[in-house]
Amino acid sequence: MMNFEEFEEKTISRQEIFKGRMIDVVLDEVILPNGETSTRELVFHPGAVAVIPITADNKLIMVKQFRKPMEKVLLEIPAGKIDPGEHDYPKETAERELEEETGYRANQLTFVTSMYVSPGFANELLHIYLAEDLEKVPNPRPQDDDEVLELYTLTLEEAKAEIATGLICDAKTIFAVQYWELQQLKKLLKEDKR
Amino acid sequence: MMNFEEFEEKTISRQEIFKGRMIDVVLDEVILPNGETSTRELVFHPGAVAVIPITADNKLIMVKQFRKPMEKVLLEIPAGKIDPGEHDYPKETAERELEEETGYRANQLTFVTSMYVSPGFANELLHIYLAEDLEKVPNPRPQDDDEVLELYTLTLEEAKAEIATGLICDAKTIFAVQYWELQQLKKLLKEDKR
Repeated sequence: MMNFEEFEEKTISRQEIFKGRMIDVVLDEVILPNGETSTRELVFHPGAVAVIPITADNKLIMVKQFRKPMEKVLLEIPAGKIDPGEHDYPKETAERELEEETGYRANQLTFVTSMYVSPGFANELLHIYLAEDLEKVPNPRPQDDDEVLELYTLTLEEAKAEIATGLICDAKTIFAVQYWELQQLKKLLKEDKR
Repeated sequence: MMNFEEFEEKTISRQEIFKGRMIDVVLDEVILPNGETSTRELVFHPGAVAVIPITADNKLIMVKQFRKPMEKVLLEIPAGKIDPGEHDYPKETAERELEEETGYRANQLTFVTSMYVSPGFANELLHIYLAEDLEKVPNPRPQDDDEVLELYTLTLEEAKAEIATGLICDAKTIFAVQYWELQQLKKLLKEDKR
């Protein structure tokens, strides 16, 4: 088993390329463990949160929205980036995004997992929560000014069908649908064993 | 249900920020469906492929590597970006990356899913394949010059434990482990029903 030093890429220099509202881009020159030099193109992102909201009648609440990088409309679970000040409290981001995007509040909000979405070039860490025991918020916080969303509620079978059509096509949502299916199968297996 | 036009963000102007070896970065000025203007920070990526290699004794082959964006060593399934010329053939990228990173060839390589890893700012599309019926390649294609990898084989329980410790912490690998668990549960349920 190799030590950290045998993997580490040491930074020789860093060039700041871009500082944006959402991402920063830098170009690092590095020394590899074998002594060679190379470059690394890096995107720094504040992190994000996604929510898997399941209704009392076992449906998944989703949002349809335009995504500029693909110039396409995608059907996704509610999600959003972590705002300044929320960094140590991704659960608060989850509560805020769920309310802003769907108008719901969850009486039960359970941490599922955290994942780096594209570790080759980006440091974006996505925290995923399961939201259950939902209730409508009387006067929900409004959506972001630059977001146009449409709400949907889907059964597991409908969600799996939309993965097949390609309308659901992003990592967090495909993960979420698979997570939901796995939880249902685990319940079934438990019942079978009784 | 809204039409595409009611979601679409029309590009007014595009500023090229960076052209790299792996990513291109642009800043778009857009008109939102409500008539307001905003900016979109976009990362263009050639796409990537990941492989879930399962051995005959039901273990997952993984690679440990340093990831500069996080300055951390991660345990991941084999993956790599699509090279020029491979674009219409992600399965060939999967074969190449499996051989380069693990020294194995798969007699059975099955498409699992394709997913946009971070649709808010990046167009990176990741194609995932399940690799089974593996055999050692006598003289495998070498690893990329700038990659230092260490191979591991883990049982499902070991992989789930490494998600808990945080050594496995990227989206494609967490998805892969969950996918593997789901396939095993589905088999169990089928056997139960007999």
